[in-house]
Amino acid sequence: MRGFYIGRFQPYHNGHHEMVLTIAEEVDELVLGIGSAGDSHTRHDPFTAGERIMMIAKSLADVDLVTYAVPIEDLNRHSVWVSHVESMSPNFDVAYSNNPLVIQLFHEAGVEVRQSPMFDREVLEGTEVRERMIDGGEWESLVPTPSSRSSMR
Amino acid sequence: MRGFYIGRFQPYHNGHHEMVLTIAEEVDELVLGIGSAGDSHTRHDPFTAGERIMMIAKSLADVDLVTYAVPIEDLNRHSVWVSHVESMSPNFDVAYSNNPLVIQLFHEAGVEVRQSPMFDREVLEGTEVRERMIDGGEWESLVPTPSSRSSMR
Amino acid sequence: MRGFYIGRFQPYHNGHHEMVLTIAEEVDELVLGIGSAGDSHTRHDPFTAGERIMMIAKSLADVDLVTYAVPIEDLNRHSVWVSHVESMSPNFDVAYSNNPLVIQLFHEAGVEVRQSPMFDREVLEGTEVRERMIDGGEWESLVPTPSSRSSMR
Amino acid sequence: MRGFYIGRFQPYHNGHHEMVLTIAEEVDELVLGIGSAGDSHTRHDPFTAGERIMMIAKSLADVDLVTYAVPIEDLNRHSVWVSHVESMSPNFDVAYSNNPLVIQLFHEAGVEVRQSPMFDREVLEGTEVRERMIDGGEWESLVPTPSSRSSMR
Amino acid sequence: MRGFYIGRFQPYHNGHHEMVLTIAEEVDELVLGIGSAGDSHTRHDPFTAGERIMMIAKSLADVDLVTYAVPIEDLNRHSVWVSHVESMSPNFDVAYSNNPLVIQLFHEAGVEVRQSPMFDREVLEGTEVRERMIDGGEWESLVPTPSSRSSMR
Amino acid sequence: MRGFYIGRFQPYHNGHHEMVLTIAEEVDELVLGIGSAGDSHTRHDPFTAGERIMMIAKSLADVDLVTYAVPIEDLNRHSVWVSHVESMSPNFDVAYSNNPLVIQLFHEAGVEVRQSPMFDREVLEGTEVRERMIDGGEWESLVPTPSSRSSMR
Repeated sequence: MRGFYIGRFQPYHNGHHEMVLTIAEEVDELVLGIGSAGDSHTRHDPFTAGERIMMIAKSLADVDLVTYAVPIEDLNRHSVWVSHVESMSPNFDVAYSNNPLVIQLFHEAGVEVRQSPMFDREVLEGTEVRERMIDGGEWESLVPTPSSRSSMR
Repeated sequence: MRGFYIGRFQPYHNGHHEMVLTIAEEVDELVLGIGSAGDSHTRHDPFTAGERIMMIAKSLADVDLVTYAVPIEDLNRHSVWVSHVESMSPNFDVAYSNNPLVIQLFHEAGVEVRQSPMFDREVLEGTEVRERMIDGGEWESLVPTPSSRSSMR
Repeated sequence: MRGFYIGRFQPYHNGHHEMVLTIAEEVDELVLGIGSAGDSHTRHDPFTAGERIMMIAKSLADVDLVTYAVPIEDLNRHSVWVSHVESMSPNFDVAYSNNPLVIQLFHEAGVEVRQSPMFDREVLEGTEVRERMIDGGEWESLVPTPSSRSSMR
Repeated sequence: MRGFYIGRFQPYHNGHHEMVLTIAEEVDELVLGIGSAGDSHTRHDPFTAGERIMMIAKSLADVDLVTYAVPIEDLNRHSVWVSHVESMSPNFDVAYSNNPLVIQLFHEAGVEVRQSPMFDREVLEGTEVRERMIDGGEWESLVPTPSSRSSMR
Repeated sequence: MRGFYIGRFQPYHNGHHEMVLTIAEEVDELVLGIGSAGDSHTRHDPFTAGERIMMIAKSLADVDLVTYAVPIEDLNRHSVWVSHVESMSPNFDVAYSNNPLVIQLFHEAGVEVRQSPMFDREVLEGTEVRERMIDGGEWESLVPTPSSRSSMR
Repeated sequence: MRGFYIGRFQPYHNGHHEMVLTIAEEVDELVLGIGSAGDSHTRHDPFTAGERIMMIAKSLADVDLVTYAVPIEDLNRHSVWVSHVESMSPNFDVAYSNNPLVIQLFHEAGVEVRQSPMFDREVLEGTEVRERMIDGGEWESLVPTPSSRSSMR
């Protein structure tokens, strides 16, 4: 069984990581769709898709789950969003999201969506870690520690 | 050291696979950029990006190389192509291509590019396997066999 | 029951008209999706969407069928095409097409598609009438006569 | 004489309907351009173009006016907006709008524009009916009653 | 009086130059619109917009005519093309072109267009000089000599 | 030596002009990149690219500096922005900007950027002159006087 979990991952942080660990109990494989893939260099979206792929790869190197980090560009057209992510991603059986729009779109398309009570955490931690990074504050504790196995480039 | 190898992979076939095995002797990690990611359902580009990710993942499951399969959308603007792939991909040290345009663009950007004598093979096999698939011919011998380790979805 | 029939209608000609009359036996309402809506002023696509809406409206004024002429822009992304037309069009129960790609896309989306043996006629008449228009030949017999009820603007 | 009236119609409500009835005294035919056709599923733009076509069609079934409901995509380029709507719409003789930007653009293009004192009503009712829909309030009185003649799909 | 002359200028060659010298007899100022500004690095469109600006600037440094070299991106939508170039360019009184589509579009927009008998020369020389450049042939005689006044960067 | 100075120039005002005069002490030629070239007709971006070209041309007619006014469309993709402006502009040796994002992007691309203490002035004057224009206030003193040499169209 393969799951699909979409986010901007700006950056990939502990809130996301715990969501992934929770999902890992239900699926064998997981696609992490990296949304707004073309956005970078702003306060709201600082990291390129390539940088976000690396964050995810390093964080998940020790997790017992087959994962795919897939950048997905914005088409700015909600009515075709589900078709678009289904085209960019390996087939999946269930989607995971706490975003009301995403849930609605998957529901309309007949795709099973599961939620978690961690929505606020995902949003708040993203903003928090970006602000700390900008202000020179301590942000390292908010993101997963790269495993020793992963390459340290 | 990380390499970058771009192609449409429509589909990923033996010509690509041998290129990857050759590259594997020179790098520790390899990014396979899946170009024209948004194209599908045509004779020239039959498979979605998601399908091509799976082809690559299954074919490389047993290869001793850390790989990243990254879909890259066409921007139809050659002058920004290198910046675009650098944004979508994890950092890489060297690019591999036999396509003259790709080689020229990387050269202008100051990125090291390595070639191989297999260019004709890559192009001809792609067209050949697509034609056999359409005509109901025998195409399986032109693509890598999925490893027994990879999931058989 | 509402049907959906898509074409470029460059111009709307007798081949299209007989397709519509055939469809009219099976549905109460019909949406005519005008594809490549943004294209005009070329040999292949001479008429604007607005001009094609008028052709269709005038030709169908006397036909006992509720119709909707809906321009649909190209997104150049087959994987989202069905979602796109479903968004632009009133809900429909069945699609009509002889185009293999359209049939395949609707099939993948689980939408019922009906064909007709008139495919060649639709394609050949379109090219024929455009060529006659360009060469100053007699083309009027290839298109429906505007009904007397319709405004003659 | 044919008029042109553009709006987002999210949804088509009584403010729009009275504007149409007023316009109907001056023209024989009216094109209702449905702007931001590609937008849907948001608070500001909840309905798809197809849904908005149906709202308009049902509301106008009993009105003695030949009408065309035409979805028009945003090009996000004001300098070409008039050319764009003229391409997507049947020819029109006069435009109706209370939006200052629309009026300015038509004026620059030499197209006659007529206004009405109902501007505030169009804007305020749109926001009001969307908010009531979202909050579960009573919104039905703000939109036209579908005529008994129109299909009740 | 200001004229407008559009071309791809891939590269700016003697055929274009003589057209400009001819136009210079009729206007005080001339805008050279550089079409397909975003295209580069192909056989058909080798030079970037920036390179083409320089070609034109150097060739016209000694010509007694106020000129503006303006890159214009393709919108791929003929119906808005005139509005688009009018937006990107300083106001002009008359356009110069031998291209039938351009002439038709300006005509529909009510813009005066003047032609010249040099159409074939413009097209044939463009293809000829590009082919010579690619094949290592002698192409310098087909393009204007940079004036001694212009900078030799 | 050629410099590159990018701004929206909505409109070109004294703050910009003094920046140019300062830059003129360091370079022989200057490219003025007109950003957001496709935007017009709004409070934030009132003037078309063509109008902005004229403002710049008239203001700089008497300045002893070879200049190029080049409209540059937004690609809305920061990661390719430097490649894009380098493609649209004649080659330049040094960029001038006070905008932190622009400085960062040029820095990452290895392009030399020089700043000036006039940043606040550029931003504040732009907003101020637009507001005065809209409110019918006195704005003429905030923009350069067209030289008597320049054409008064």
